[in-house]
Amino acid sequence: MLNSYAMEAPSSYLFSEIARKVAAFSEKHGGDGPRIIRMGIGDVTRPLPRACVDAMKSAADEQLSAATLRGYPPDGGYDFLRKAISEHEYKRRGADIPPEDIFISDGAKSDSANIQELFGNDCVVGVSDPVYPVYADSNAWSGRLGHYADGRWERLVTFPCTRENGYVAPPPDGHVDLIYLCFPNNPTGAAASRAQLRAWVDYANEHGSIIIYDAAYRAYISDPDIPRSIYEIDGAKTCAIEICSFSKTAGFTGVRCSWTVAPEELRRGGVSLRALWARRQATKFNGTPYIVQRGAEAVYSPAGQSQCAETISVYMRNARRILDALRGAGIEATGGVNAPYVWMRCPDNMDSWGFFDYLLKEARVVGTPGSGFGKCGEGYFRLTAFGSPEDTDEAMHRVGALSRKI
Amino acid sequence: MLNSYAMEAPSSYLFSEIARKVAAFSEKHGGDGPRIIRMGIGDVTRPLPRACVDAMKSAADEQLSAATLRGYPPDGGYDFLRKAISEHEYKRRGADIPPEDIFISDGAKSDSANIQELFGNDCVVGVSDPVYPVYADSNAWSGRLGHYADGRWERLVTFPCTRENGYVAPPPDGHVDLIYLCFPNNPTGAAASRAQLRAWVDYANEHGSIIIYDAAYRAYISDPDIPRSIYEIDGAKTCAIEICSFSKTAGFTGVRCSWTVAPEELRRGGVSLRALWARRQATKFNGTPYIVQRGAEAVYSPAGQSQCAETISVYMRNARRILDALRGAGIEATGGVNAPYVWMRCPDNMDSWGFFDYLLKEARVVGTPGSGFGKCGEGYFRLTAFGSPEDTDEAMHRVGALSRKI
Repeated sequence: MLNSYAMEAPSSYLFSEIARKVAAFSEKHGGDGPRIIRMGIGDVTRPLPRACVDAMKSAADEQLSAATLRGYPPDGGYDFLRKAISEHEYKRRGADIPPEDIFISDGAKSDSANIQELFGNDCVVGVSDPVYPVYADSNAWSGRLGHYADGRWERLVTFPCTRENGYVAPPPDGHVDLIYLCFPNNPTGAAASRAQLRAWVDYANEHGSIIIYDAAYRAYISDPDIPRSIYEIDGAKTCAIEICSFSKTAGFTGVRCSWTVAPEELRRGGVSLRALWARRQATKFNGTPYIVQRGAEAVYSPAGQSQCAETISVYMRNARRILDALRGAGIEATGGVNAPYVWMRCPDNMDSWGFFDYLLKEARVVGTPGSGFGKCGEGYFRLTAFGSPEDTDEAMHRVGALSRKI
Repeated sequence: MLNSYAMEAPSSYLFSEIARKVAAFSEKHGGDGPRIIRMGIGDVTRPLPRACVDAMKSAADEQLSAATLRGYPPDGGYDFLRKAISEHEYKRRGADIPPEDIFISDGAKSDSANIQELFGNDCVVGVSDPVYPVYADSNAWSGRLGHYADGRWERLVTFPCTRENGYVAPPPDGHVDLIYLCFPNNPTGAAASRAQLRAWVDYANEHGSIIIYDAAYRAYISDPDIPRSIYEIDGAKTCAIEICSFSKTAGFTGVRCSWTVAPEELRRGGVSLRALWARRQATKFNGTPYIVQRGAEAVYSPAGQSQCAETISVYMRNARRILDALRGAGIEATGGVNAPYVWMRCPDNMDSWGFFDYLLKEARVVGTPGSGFGKCGEGYFRLTAFGSPEDTDEAMHRVGALSRKI
């Protein structure tokens, strides 16, 4: 009677497994030795922009009066936020995405997990390897990937992202219906160039495929030649759905706000995917809190923009520090330039979980095993730039000391 | 390539359809005649409890400092809220539900739509008729109900709730795997007695079925003999998952907070449903905002409790007013005693949508057509007690005037 596909999946969600291991280590060694520094889960550490906090408090105060109380949020989100996103995230960058194509939600994780519900179980699904596990896991739960055997889902296509292709896979030779791309990438920190993205858009339009484009880390792109949105590529509106988040732009991991773009032009067999997503959300979701949507709107105020920029510059200084330290220790490392993630090769041919245990034990630093993101991630390790500068410096100091011992 | 089951579903979600009709009417007649009074969607109108607003503002302020910033919420929710719910909603009423069985979420709608993901597509699903549409719709999207033809899903079992059984259906003769119950009921306002609930729990334990118990309106129960939780019935822990919400208890429709109970004792084929739900949430959801969870916690403070009680008493006075007015007009009406919904028979043998149009046109009052909740709802109509006393009085005044014309 239970969902057998869900039960076939490997027994634990990556980040829950890390949390479990760290908790077990802490319990055993909590009292002795240096404190544990977490560079594993991509959680933020800098305070929220004051503009967002002020907006949320003011929105909370509105709830004290019947005249300004807000009940169920409108389907798709409040117009004020949809308009602000349309203007600031798209129109100013030359992508004409109107507010009606933008749907506010509670997180890029929810949306990237839920979007597969629009598709039939006959779809062939493809994901990068390595990549954020939610894309494959959500399809697996729906049975779309078949059974799990020998460490893989039988119907999942993977696009290997390797040192050779600079961690940006080209489109496949065969046919894939539903393609998940994430740039700047989690976990490799690779950013796709305009030409690389264009190849995917062209592939999708030729094959009638749909691209689910996760741009949660777009705010970390500093290179003006790298697209922040897939809609900066001609033809993307007829083949792509884009998912974005305030989590990493404005430190909203605990506030929970995101958006998904389903362009009016995106249709298959005469059916509008925008209408189908609207239907899905109206059927299974009741919206993002008004207070949170006001907080997100404040990201686009002048004060919000400068406060977000300051936070991002702090994190990007951390990324620089991590890259420098790893390379100084003779470790191969990439990413960290247009992305908050650094992707490193485990030293001494350690495997990913072996290095996780080693680093936790010897340096008390928590990172994320690359193998948790796919087979091609084996032997790699992800470090995040979201720590405090002090923690990042201390962690890199410990890594440097360790490398002199290795 | 698209989800054919989703596309087979009737073309519009009930409340979206009502919103569309009201918008069209407003556009045509907005300027002339009396204003429209909304008693359709069950949205609240009373201000939030001050205790909740204060808690949310204070939680927002914590986000201004790195030391007190909260990032990704813990899986399942913050302990402070899980403990408060365990204590106030369960232990004090004699139901021993520990915090670990309680999972915080963003809405009873999301949870009641998502819970079906734990089950195989071979499950036979049963819902009351009439009932909140999300239970059937979410199963339909997953393909579990087969195809839609002649106005019904081919594999959906319905439990008719009629005037004859007091709108509380008894368990069926045949076998059903997954049973959705909602008490106090939306839309009929019927509350299940201890004996009626016991019959369902006994059925489920005998058949190995699982009950999804939606208790979103539990705070409106004033009769001490009516259970507020299914766990007040012996044996429920081995067969029931309960979903509850702060929306109607504390006016959180725009704040978004709910919880789901999956007891540790609930297993099928050796698999723990608590573990499976935890896995589902960890895979596809990133939690409810910290700020919101602090707001929900404040519901259980002495000030929060008295502010919530005051609001509920205002709504229940509305319910009384609606019942009196309808009955005074010779209209058959039920519910509204242990529930915020009044269920009325459409006068003059009008059908539900016919009466919707009639009431909107003649009285400018918006209600919900009973047929939108199932076939047995045809010829009935739902009015909610969530309006302001002034609006409720005015709407009932108009209904009274109308009845004298009929």
